[in-house]
Amino acid sequence: MKVNENKTSFIGVLKGYLPILDWGAKYNSKTFTNDLIVALIVTMMLIPQSLAYAILAGLPPEIGLYASMAPLVLYAIFGTSRALAVGPVAVASLMTAAAAGKLASQGTPEYIGAAVALAMVSGLLLIAMGFLKLGFLANFLSHPVIAGFITASGIQIAAGQLGPVLGIHLEGETFLDIAISFWNNISLIHIATTAIGVGSLIFLFWVRSGLKPLLIRLGMKAKLSDIMVKVGPVVAIIATIVIVWVLGLSEQGVKIVGKVPGGLPKLAMPPLDMALWLKILVPALLISIVGYVESISVALTLAAKKRQRVDPDQELIALGASNIGSAISGGFPVTGGFARSVVNFDAGAETPAAGAFTAVGIALTTLFLTPLLFFLPNATLAATIIVAVLSLVNLAALKHAWKFSKADFAAMAVTIIITLIEGIEPGLIAGVALSILLHLYKTSRPHIAVVGQIPGTSTFRNKLRHEVVTDPEILSLRIDESLYFPNARFIEDYINNSVAANSGVKHVILECPAINGIDLSALESLEAINLRLKDGGITFHLSEIKGPVMDQLKRSHFLEKLTGKVFLRHYDAVASIKPELARRTLETKL
Amino acid sequence: MKVNENKTSFIGVLKGYLPILDWGAKYNSKTFTNDLIVALIVTMMLIPQSLAYAILAGLPPEIGLYASMAPLVLYAIFGTSRALAVGPVAVASLMTAAAAGKLASQGTPEYIGAAVALAMVSGLLLIAMGFLKLGFLANFLSHPVIAGFITASGIQIAAGQLGPVLGIHLEGETFLDIAISFWNNISLIHIATTAIGVGSLIFLFWVRSGLKPLLIRLGMKAKLSDIMVKVGPVVAIIATIVIVWVLGLSEQGVKIVGKVPGGLPKLAMPPLDMALWLKILVPALLISIVGYVESISVALTLAAKKRQRVDPDQELIALGASNIGSAISGGFPVTGGFARSVVNFDAGAETPAAGAFTAVGIALTTLFLTPLLFFLPNATLAATIIVAVLSLVNLAALKHAWKFSKADFAAMAVTIIITLIEGIEPGLIAGVALSILLHLYKTSRPHIAVVGQIPGTSTFRNKLRHEVVTDPEILSLRIDESLYFPNARFIEDYINNSVAANSGVKHVILECPAINGIDLSALESLEAINLRLKDGGITFHLSEIKGPVMDQLKRSHFLEKLTGKVFLRHYDAVASIKPELARRTLETKL
Repeated sequence: MKVNENKTSFIGVLKGYLPILDWGAKYNSKTFTNDLIVALIVTMMLIPQSLAYAILAGLPPEIGLYASMAPLVLYAIFGTSRALAVGPVAVASLMTAAAAGKLASQGTPEYIGAAVALAMVSGLLLIAMGFLKLGFLANFLSHPVIAGFITASGIQIAAGQLGPVLGIHLEGETFLDIAISFWNNISLIHIATTAIGVGSLIFLFWVRSGLKPLLIRLGMKAKLSDIMVKVGPVVAIIATIVIVWVLGLSEQGVKIVGKVPGGLPKLAMPPLDMALWLKILVPALLISIVGYVESISVALTLAAKKRQRVDPDQELIALGASNIGSAISGGFPVTGGFARSVVNFDAGAETPAAGAFTAVGIALTTLFLTPLLFFLPNATLAATIIVAVLSLVNLAALKHAWKFSKADFAAMAVTIIITLIEGIEPGLIAGVALSILLHLYKTSRPHIAVVGQIPGTSTFRNKLRHEVVTDPEILSLRIDESLYFPNARFIEDYINNSVAANSGVKHVILECPAINGIDLSALESLEAINLRLKDGGITFHLSEIKGPVMDQLKRSHFLEKLTGKVFLRHYDAVASIKPELARRTLETKL
Repeated sequence: MKVNENKTSFIGVLKGYLPILDWGAKYNSKTFTNDLIVALIVTMMLIPQSLAYAILAGLPPEIGLYASMAPLVLYAIFGTSRALAVGPVAVASLMTAAAAGKLASQGTPEYIGAAVALAMVSGLLLIAMGFLKLGFLANFLSHPVIAGFITASGIQIAAGQLGPVLGIHLEGETFLDIAISFWNNISLIHIATTAIGVGSLIFLFWVRSGLKPLLIRLGMKAKLSDIMVKVGPVVAIIATIVIVWVLGLSEQGVKIVGKVPGGLPKLAMPPLDMALWLKILVPALLISIVGYVESISVALTLAAKKRQRVDPDQELIALGASNIGSAISGGFPVTGGFARSVVNFDAGAETPAAGAFTAVGIALTTLFLTPLLFFLPNATLAATIIVAVLSLVNLAALKHAWKFSKADFAAMAVTIIITLIEGIEPGLIAGVALSILLHLYKTSRPHIAVVGQIPGTSTFRNKLRHEVVTDPEILSLRIDESLYFPNARFIEDYINNSVAANSGVKHVILECPAINGIDLSALESLEAINLRLKDGGITFHLSEIKGPVMDQLKRSHFLEKLTGKVFLRHYDAVASIKPELARRTLETKL
């Protein structure tokens, strides 16, 4: 929702779509210096990540650098978060590999073309969703489904990167296939590669867990030592480049990145290939939504810490522009990443300009530093990916979900299992479908309480949970659900059976505070209930109907046919049928 | 739900599954005579219908008779409705033709085999659903979807039968195709056939509208004249048989039924062809569910009139047995039909035995009367179908739905349009999917009311609809929806924006009588809301949480982190924050 006081004025609308007009006007030398330092730190972190995620997506490493320039600048112009850092991320890279892999083999120009097209279509979809205010669609990825999906993706990515770390070739697009491939190839481990890969892994895990306490003990401030931890991968990269170069390990079969073409990417519109775009529409949509959910969660979390506002619909436009920027500069799908945004935030990014300066840092790297990457071993990059993605794996969330709700647990578990076995698209789709089906099942058999009056009050509560006063002639029922087609007949049956089981009943009063809507199927059920109760000499009343529901009932003929009355409060209904009982209970001292 | 006092005893359970044990014990000569008369009337009505619906399903006419024997006997044993008459019906016949037509061409043994297999699989599915108590699945066909589907099927059937009525050949499996075929073949109308067809149509329409008033004027009782109206088709059949025979019209190109093989059907298990059964699984499921919905609605309506009970789960078993019986005797899918059940009821059927006697009537017809059907013109049968199905077409229901709810209207309209254009399966599936999506969309943006205290009461209501007392420091919000993933972030945004717009707010109280469930996504949103309000120095309270929701919250750590308290009544919350204001308002004379 765009909350903008000047919304009606042209400048107001323009500022809504171009937040840079807002913060750009207040920019000064202090914020400039600050943003510059932040950019330096983030660049250091982004270089290995960009290379690694490009390789994870099955693309040449330089494409990772390309995807880390234009998107950052475009996000700085259109984005509303002060801290979000946009670029290639693990899950979107995995999804890119899965989608492009269905259309071409890795290493071919068609494969690269498909990855660029994914960024383009994904960008267009995001912008369309932004203008149509369709951000709410992302809500259909429930927390358990997205958590399960990210955990499963993390496991699959980590498993796949064990190949480069151990110097073996692993094949397969699902965790299951990769695991089988691992089992079949385990004997082919390459010793020198494994030494570098596992060495990097151990170093990087130590950086995560052991470096910070050490730095603090050495007198460094907590925040700065946090940032040093994030720069750890650069140290691993420099060290292993030197080792491979000095020991000549590439001649002994250690795979290296090799020649990374230098220079800035050529800007070009990706060809408008409608047949290709249609083929990648579904994966592009899934990448867009997953990327958006990841990005907006990070943005909202960081904004809340500084009480800044993030506009969810404008974020769609900003991410869309970033992806189109990536496509035009030959890159692949990007989104706001968690780790780098936190670094951005912790280092004190004041404005989105920090992101633009980071883009300059990456550009300088592309221009001048690519020759230094020649001896970079793939095993080191794979190790950085494993360490990064393992932080995404959160199996404890399963336990948490189990404790809170079996339905949420089931959605999460099914998402994880289907993603690992069948792949990422089926996993996501199964998770969303199951969440919806479980919701429908639950609402199809709603909780119904027989309510009675709490002595000393005019309040009515479930007689199984509270000490209440009831009367054998009055059956007061509270249905805890909106009345709609999946539960319409259930409620009909429930009331029929309740009346059959309580022969003295002369009045049925439906207390409706929990009924948020009535559809046509439920209306017809209410009419049937009214008619059947009438045949049995029982009067049917309603109480506590909410305004919008009452408006709806007034558009039908139900209220004319209703044998009883509609009361504002349940107490009024009981008081009108049994005035003495209701009053006596009201006056009872609690 | 099976409500049976002896449920725990073996005899009780047996009586639940074999209702015949219950009514059979009380059977006597009076009910016998009565049931016999009813059977005679229903047989007269069922003969033309059975022949016509078999032809509608693309099957030889005798198969219609086969499908009207065993199912009636089996329903008499297993069914719980006293009035339901089971047999071939229009919509199920159309669905059978559509499903079998995809596997073989009409007139081949494979086509008949597919129709028989549909009855078998449908029967097995219904029995499985009955034992697994899955009758609620039928509820997902909402009233607007089923009404739209039946209307569209009626239109399509009527359009298709215009072919035989006019003596032209129409092709196509959807209304659209049939209409195009009609347009292309209109010039080929066969005059003699048209004379018989249109003549029958006019006669049958007159029987429906003009005969009853005439009979009543002639002194006949209303109920008896109603029954005479239903027997009208038999008169048309006899008359046109005589006309065709006497005038030798069949030599002039009037299509006739021809030789109908006499004798009872041979009983045989349909071959267990797993490949075929899997192919027809989805159509068989749709036929089962649509048939069940039609049948149970009729059964419930008629039972309510005599205050009898119908057991929805046992009805699944009875319909399943009827379909298996139909398959074993070489018939096609059957269900409880509306018109014939009403005749059964009006004629005074006392027990399901009336159905069994009708089966005997059909058997006698099959044994002795089939030679008389030789000259029966197809045009007459087509005319009886048109007159029967046009009563299913109810376009006024669209207007009714439009007035009550745009969502229900959309579901009905889309079901009609897709069924007419794309066919019956896509129509049904689109209708169900749209109903679910519209529900999800609606609940994703719930109604939220700012509430205040109604003077003179402890009741709180929407401040836009009632004269209420509010306080600038307290923001009381009532969310009219369960909190779950599609609306979790909407609510987060809403509360953030409300607080931003009301700077004086120090307490936010969520009144929760309409919240029937909280899932993990919503729990995380509540935690985020609590944290953000806390950062802004605002206390977050909850009131009127229902028992099951409170149980759920207690399984999380949310209540420990909540900055405010949970109150049983909203009044208690306000009274605890602003005791004087609450008490003063409570004591205000209304």
